[in-house]
Amino acid sequence: MDAAAGKQPRIVIVGAGFGGLSAAKALRRASAKVTLIDRTNYHLFQPLLYQVATAELAPSEIAVPLRSILRDQENAEILLGTVNDVDLQARTVILQELGQKVSYDYLVVATGAQHSYFGHDEWERYAPGLKTVEEATAIRRRILLAFERAETETDPEERRRLLTFVIVGGGPTGVEMAGAIAGLAKRILVRDFRHIDPRSARIILIEGQDRLLSTYPENLSMAADRSLERLGVEVWLSKMVETCDEDGVVAGGQRIEARTIIWGAGNAASPAAQWLNADRDRAGRVKVAPDLSLPGHSEVFVIGDTALVTMDDGSPVPGVAPAAKQQGEYVAKVISAKLAGHPAPEPFRYRNLGNLATIGRSAAIADFGWLRISGFFAWVLWGLVHIYFLIGFRNRFAVAAKWLWAYFTVDRGARLIIGAQEPSSRSAPPPS
Amino acid sequence: MDAAAGKQPRIVIVGAGFGGLSAAKALRRASAKVTLIDRTNYHLFQPLLYQVATAELAPSEIAVPLRSILRDQENAEILLGTVNDVDLQARTVILQELGQKVSYDYLVVATGAQHSYFGHDEWERYAPGLKTVEEATAIRRRILLAFERAETETDPEERRRLLTFVIVGGGPTGVEMAGAIAGLAKRILVRDFRHIDPRSARIILIEGQDRLLSTYPENLSMAADRSLERLGVEVWLSKMVETCDEDGVVAGGQRIEARTIIWGAGNAASPAAQWLNADRDRAGRVKVAPDLSLPGHSEVFVIGDTALVTMDDGSPVPGVAPAAKQQGEYVAKVISAKLAGHPAPEPFRYRNLGNLATIGRSAAIADFGWLRISGFFAWVLWGLVHIYFLIGFRNRFAVAAKWLWAYFTVDRGARLIIGAQEPSSRSAPPPS
Repeated sequence: MDAAAGKQPRIVIVGAGFGGLSAAKALRRASAKVTLIDRTNYHLFQPLLYQVATAELAPSEIAVPLRSILRDQENAEILLGTVNDVDLQARTVILQELGQKVSYDYLVVATGAQHSYFGHDEWERYAPGLKTVEEATAIRRRILLAFERAETETDPEERRRLLTFVIVGGGPTGVEMAGAIAGLAKRILVRDFRHIDPRSARIILIEGQDRLLSTYPENLSMAADRSLERLGVEVWLSKMVETCDEDGVVAGGQRIEARTIIWGAGNAASPAAQWLNADRDRAGRVKVAPDLSLPGHSEVFVIGDTALVTMDDGSPVPGVAPAAKQQGEYVAKVISAKLAGHPAPEPFRYRNLGNLATIGRSAAIADFGWLRISGFFAWVLWGLVHIYFLIGFRNRFAVAAKWLWAYFTVDRGARLIIGAQEPSSRSAPPPS
Repeated sequence: MDAAAGKQPRIVIVGAGFGGLSAAKALRRASAKVTLIDRTNYHLFQPLLYQVATAELAPSEIAVPLRSILRDQENAEILLGTVNDVDLQARTVILQELGQKVSYDYLVVATGAQHSYFGHDEWERYAPGLKTVEEATAIRRRILLAFERAETETDPEERRRLLTFVIVGGGPTGVEMAGAIAGLAKRILVRDFRHIDPRSARIILIEGQDRLLSTYPENLSMAADRSLERLGVEVWLSKMVETCDEDGVVAGGQRIEARTIIWGAGNAASPAAQWLNADRDRAGRVKVAPDLSLPGHSEVFVIGDTALVTMDDGSPVPGVAPAAKQQGEYVAKVISAKLAGHPAPEPFRYRNLGNLATIGRSAAIADFGWLRISGFFAWVLWGLVHIYFLIGFRNRFAVAAKWLWAYFTVDRGARLIIGAQEPSSRSAPPPS
């Protein structure tokens, strides 16, 4: 895997999210070897991950194998691996896998972000986040098992604890999770149990600031709040989480006993800033030059949630899929220009195409700057936009069919508790 | 959960496979309380599990939540739990979950079978079987990771080891797995890699007897053999596996170096015979009375792969889904007759509706006794029969659509490596 990459320049892209993948695709005509490294073998449509966590979609409907996306792009290769470090002097990327190094002429770092536990990483075991497919299926298992255990629980206090769901963080992830869990409890599961009434479930959304969706205009925050309350979600504003343990949380001085806590708060960039020894902001994002390169290293670019890019008004470009995509396409243009010896393109500018968030069945909010809507029409729009951007025709079709089916029949097909047992059951108790 | 089940008699069914589920459904008009216990929350359409293992279908397409199947059957309840033992005297079923006991007036044991490692249970870690969703996704991960690792492997010997796949057992599971892996390697993945040619993969199917599919007529065994050879599978007959380790297997005195070994041989009934302290055959199956009850206990029934039922010619009823279903419906009739004070029905008789197996794309074999066919027509028949028996309209539709799509486009959508990392990645290396 070492140097000797031949005469063609080698472009290494780390991370196959929206940023990295769009960079790789935009480089299809570059006369260079493009190596895309990711630790999974698929591109994940993260905006719908919460629907995997709430049993609405299956993982394969929002994940597409990278090799099938780039199959026909002959200058691209894919490497399944976990990057650990970057050697800026030697121009190599270092993989966790024993001794593997990949050398580059141009490097694009697009490693995304994680949730931030505000210095309390020990809370993660009680309050898992929602960034990977594994986390989404683990959360789905927790939610569904809570109902199953409540069904056979005879102690009323423990039963209440099992039927209490706390979501921390009132950003899009938290709002969408709260709405989806409410839908599950109050509609989908209603007739499934004999000893509990799933409608009695308590769903609490906790936000530290004084309104939900703080990056949206205020009237849309209000609309989201009202939609959630209508679904039976308790919205707690201006409350910070002080503790998290296996029996619940303390927020704003008040204790909530709950067996299921989901973390959707804070954003911390991946450790890329450490690898690059770069200037970063408090969230760990790399401060980049106007062409998204690493200051002092015009051959290294940082994009997406890993980069801090400021807009004309001084505020940062938001950490959303369209921003990452635009940045991926932009750096592809910069690198192509360098390879061809053309002048550098204009500095990067983010074009805000609007923001969307959904709140359960039939309600959503949309903000296009010139148009701000909420309610059913925003929800239909949300569905169309998400289906349109799903990569791969088949997934688009499958998701559309599933949503329509779910809408008209009130059912959820992906309601499987998988992975609760070890794959190997031989030494374990017999199947029942 | 203890006694005090009220005045209605309580029927407990352990296991929600084809046998247990069909018994529960056939008891829908019985004036009794039906409790179905399973350690998963879904019914699994096991005949298609190999397609999950070979990335053709997603788990949610062949698994249906039990609660949605029995939602409208008011006399039925579902209990998620693992049965550990049965107390025949006290008439209770004992759950692994701390101290839980469930009392019964009638008991149906339908706990299925596992693969048998012929006394070498330590082989399971090297050669996983294919009975659960977790095992299927673990096998899928192994197969796909083998290709990924081969792509970056520089040692030609290790690369060959990675591209060698051994399937042990030439029954339907082994034949179907071998055909599907061949399809994956020789068609689906062909253009996905840059450094390896997936078509060079070696797929070896090892069978101890002198022909494949030994429960089928001989000419169909031959047809299966020919179809597999055409797909590039090496079929090794009359060879017993002598050792299994992480580098490969020894079979018939010959060593095969392979990183992926899949076990599809032997059948061992679940430990139900031990719980019931019952007479059993060498495979651990309970010898039942002609009405499928446990000799000496007319209130306990054993069905499906857990029971040894003999046909008129003295041979055992095969361990296939239709047999389990017929037995489930039969014991429901016996119990209903007892509850109503009606005379007992005739002894159980198995009606052979035919056997089907598929070998990769466009080939299958079918045996209906009066009709034995192989080839494309048998394959279409196989597809229709499997779709027809898939529970739940949506899954039927989804699987049909997916198969048609795969047939005309040569693509496989569920090609995801999931679960390779721990769900919690905070303490682990950063995402790449």
